[in-house]
Amino acid sequence: MKTQPRPAGLHGKGLADLGGCRYHRGMAEKQIEEGLEFTPKFDGRGLIPAIAQDAETGQILMVAWMNREALDRTLATGRATYFSRSRNKLWTKGEESGHIQRVRQILVDCDQDCLILKVAVDQGQCHVGYQSCFYRAVKSGSRTDLEFIAEKVYDPNAAYKK
Amino acid sequence: MKTQPRPAGLHGKGLADLGGCRYHRGMAEKQIEEGLEFTPKFDGRGLIPAIAQDAETGQILMVAWMNREALDRTLATGRATYFSRSRNKLWTKGEESGHIQRVRQILVDCDQDCLILKVAVDQGQCHVGYQSCFYRAVKSGSRTDLEFIAEKVYDPNAAYKK
Repeated sequence: MKTQPRPAGLHGKGLADLGGCRYHRGMAEKQIEEGLEFTPKFDGRGLIPAIAQDAETGQILMVAWMNREALDRTLATGRATYFSRSRNKLWTKGEESGHIQRVRQILVDCDQDCLILKVAVDQGQCHVGYQSCFYRAVKSGSRTDLEFIAEKVYDPNAAYKK
Repeated sequence: MKTQPRPAGLHGKGLADLGGCRYHRGMAEKQIEEGLEFTPKFDGRGLIPAIAQDAETGQILMVAWMNREALDRTLATGRATYFSRSRNKLWTKGEESGHIQRVRQILVDCDQDCLILKVAVDQGQCHVGYQSCFYRAVKSGSRTDLEFIAEKVYDPNAAYKK
């Protein structure tokens, strides 16, 4: 039993205050943080952020959202399925482009409000043509300039055309 | 010039619809996605999610939020500074625990609504005592059970006590 509240905000707690998520103190918090029950916290919109990370290389490929159904489908099929807020429906990564994500492992963070999908992928996970959506970095010493840190690995016009 | 809208939701677009973020089509989208101007999209709350990733190992350590001031301070000092929604103020990672993050590189994704901080760290980035906040994984074949995939690397009670 903790007699002092734990120091809030000393790690990645920011996502916890999205929508319906709240801090959990005392035993509930301990269960969430140190227990072995998977109780993902969906926010007020019913969503949880998911980071797709290459299981082989550790490269972060993209960040998207899941609702309960997307997570269940991902768990059932082993293929990453997300929820598109813009299209208001589930989408399985690669359903149009062919660049699917085979899920090897799902990690959850301390307060269970963010997921990592460790995925096996082929070339080209970003719709712009790069392996990762994170193909640019802020130039050293600048706060306004980017530089490319990757090269395109496929032609998105060919992959996405009708 | 694109004559067809690009297929929305085929990558990590979910974060784009948070708050004030909207899809950008045509030239604006192309500039955001393929340009070299760093124009991070803060959401309706003035926040952008930031993933802290170990620059050496590729391990994802935590996920938090930044406002413009937190990002500017991070860029100016080279130490990761986030915005705590619960405390409604900036916090520099490690200001209490000593487990700071030295920022080696900042990556931005295609639509510039998510950041990766490549950081150099010492032991123990999670307040629970682990190196990463992601110290548990969903058990293979289960949708309800977790298993630990890491061991604690420091004693949080010692690090955070007054």
